[in-house]
Amino acid sequence: MTKSSAGKTTLNPFGMTVVEDYERLYEEFGIQKFKPLLTQIPKPYMSMRRGVIFGHRDFERILNAMKNHEEFAVMSGIKPTGEFHLGTLMTAREVIYFQQQGATAFYCIADVEAYEDNRIPFERSERYAVGNVADLLALGFDPKRGYIYRQSREERVKDLAIIFGRKVTLATMKAIYGERHMGLYISALIQAGDILLPQLEDFGGPKPTVVPVGVDQDPHLRLTRDLASKFRRKYGFILPSSTYHKLIKCLDGSPKMSKRDPMSYFTFQEKPESIAKKISNAFTGGRPTAEEQRKLGGIPEICPIYEMYMFHFFKEDKDVVQLYHDCKSGKILCGEDKERLIEIILNFVKEHRRKRRQNIDKARKILEVK
Amino acid sequence: MTKSSAGKTTLNPFGMTVVEDYERLYEEFGIQKFKPLLTQIPKPYMSMRRGVIFGHRDFERILNAMKNHEEFAVMSGIKPTGEFHLGTLMTAREVIYFQQQGATAFYCIADVEAYEDNRIPFERSERYAVGNVADLLALGFDPKRGYIYRQSREERVKDLAIIFGRKVTLATMKAIYGERHMGLYISALIQAGDILLPQLEDFGGPKPTVVPVGVDQDPHLRLTRDLASKFRRKYGFILPSSTYHKLIKCLDGSPKMSKRDPMSYFTFQEKPESIAKKISNAFTGGRPTAEEQRKLGGIPEICPIYEMYMFHFFKEDKDVVQLYHDCKSGKILCGEDKERLIEIILNFVKEHRRKRRQNIDKARKILEVK
Repeated sequence: MTKSSAGKTTLNPFGMTVVEDYERLYEEFGIQKFKPLLTQIPKPYMSMRRGVIFGHRDFERILNAMKNHEEFAVMSGIKPTGEFHLGTLMTAREVIYFQQQGATAFYCIADVEAYEDNRIPFERSERYAVGNVADLLALGFDPKRGYIYRQSREERVKDLAIIFGRKVTLATMKAIYGERHMGLYISALIQAGDILLPQLEDFGGPKPTVVPVGVDQDPHLRLTRDLASKFRRKYGFILPSSTYHKLIKCLDGSPKMSKRDPMSYFTFQEKPESIAKKISNAFTGGRPTAEEQRKLGGIPEICPIYEMYMFHFFKEDKDVVQLYHDCKSGKILCGEDKERLIEIILNFVKEHRRKRRQNIDKARKILEVK
Repeated sequence: MTKSSAGKTTLNPFGMTVVEDYERLYEEFGIQKFKPLLTQIPKPYMSMRRGVIFGHRDFERILNAMKNHEEFAVMSGIKPTGEFHLGTLMTAREVIYFQQQGATAFYCIADVEAYEDNRIPFERSERYAVGNVADLLALGFDPKRGYIYRQSREERVKDLAIIFGRKVTLATMKAIYGERHMGLYISALIQAGDILLPQLEDFGGPKPTVVPVGVDQDPHLRLTRDLASKFRRKYGFILPSSTYHKLIKCLDGSPKMSKRDPMSYFTFQEKPESIAKKISNAFTGGRPTAEEQRKLGGIPEICPIYEMYMFHFFKEDKDVVQLYHDCKSGKILCGEDKERLIEIILNFVKEHRRKRRQNIDKARKILEVK
């Protein structure tokens, strides 16, 4: 994945991780390229500008709604299996971005999936859910123009799953999800219900809906779009659109962070020292010695530190470009680069946690948790 | 099925249809014989005495509850796909019998199953459901000591289905139900939820529960007993018990009535003339000519007319025995036998419909239908 990217991307620091694997997604799954739409988007979000959002399905429909100030919805969510981290931050910020662009925002606490897939009983996921919602509010989600709910409590979503079930063959489920237990298939149908919930009469009926997710969630979109089309006559569904962001790397440089290895990521609820230490110890695209680094330059394309700046922590695109070139040219060493990032992240986390604390009661109220 | 029965059953008119096929159920599926328990049952129901209820699972547990006046529940239901007929009458009467013996009675309107299996949308099944519940009330169901509900509206049942899903493999579903669409599997899990609903804390917690059903419903019981055992720690479930009645024959003598052929059965909402005509035209166990009949006797073992008397319309066991012998000896001819039955049934239907009309509003209220 990184080999060919190194050569291809010198002029395009934002697009560099769109390499063979992502190209394959376009061809094999029919995901469309996001870049050609970029110039038409009134206020493109930073992850759009930087190629972090690299693909989509039917985003034109959303674009038109945005341009023409027509009604549309954004829908995404979180599995309440732990505290917020950089991965969940990405989706949450995308949802908030679309809300700020005029969308009615739906944010689902996927506790049924947390149960079926991660064996976390509802009683336990409820605790995480409160924190997750407080995080979302702290990040700027406006609950007055949005709907936050738990799958396990949203009867309309469960009912859609039951209704959808009749037109889903076992072969389809196995083709999409492999041979899994019944609960996982049910949870997939419930997620189809989540995605189409914004189009029910209770929420004003059919409307363009964008689902910003990590590209690993595309199977749910394929299933849901198929169901939207099968039940179009009954509900008038408009096929949901989606945007796909790249998955953020582990701190050890491996492709996707995993909750099984707590050293591979950090949450916003960890102690600052722990976060700082994990970043200090992170894998980088640097060379074995400072001397070599000065001479050969680093490899930002494989570097999780660079990715954190680009995905989340540099507000200005020009700073990302600058860092890319400073790294490539050997002007900046990994140590100082990490030090600066640690400072930025600890400041962000401190400020975020302050806002989060202020929103805990509100979150509790939204989720009807005593 | 009938050959061997003819020889075996001369002294036992009630047991005659327990032949090879039913014997196989004992061996292959571990269904237990009901007859050995009969003498211990305080007030055995007519279909118990007559061998119509021929099998069970763990009925001893119910027997003990009945004897010791301990809490227990009865749970069964109906698919709201049409009007009441002799098949649904059987289950309804069994539920009412157990209610009268002290059980808290749960009667489920299986509208999810009607949708998944028979493609009847909830809006349409609702109409049938009102009638079905009015029928149940007309037959003597006491709503004050029972709970009547629709699957599609009972969130606790849907939630149990979702919770159960995690411990059901695809292989299990396929082994029990064959390769079907997702909706049918979901509906099976929902039925497991129905059967275990009486044991939730909301209804007083774990208790012996008997599910009186046609033997064709045993797969649901096997699945549910397996789930009750898997979730015993969480909910304290007691394995549900069941009783199995034989399936009533078609009017044309074939093994099970089918809604696909309206001449093979009648509903209680049909015109009296239509019912009378269908019975007149029914297949019987009679001989080609009256002369032969007088000489050889009839074959009640294969006769749907005889079965109707035995299953439903003779209140006294001695009348069934009498008819059996009168038929066997050629003393009674099919024409007069049918004529008498038509009179009994039309009287029953007339009286039943009167009571049903009185209960329509109550049914509507119970189902919260406007």
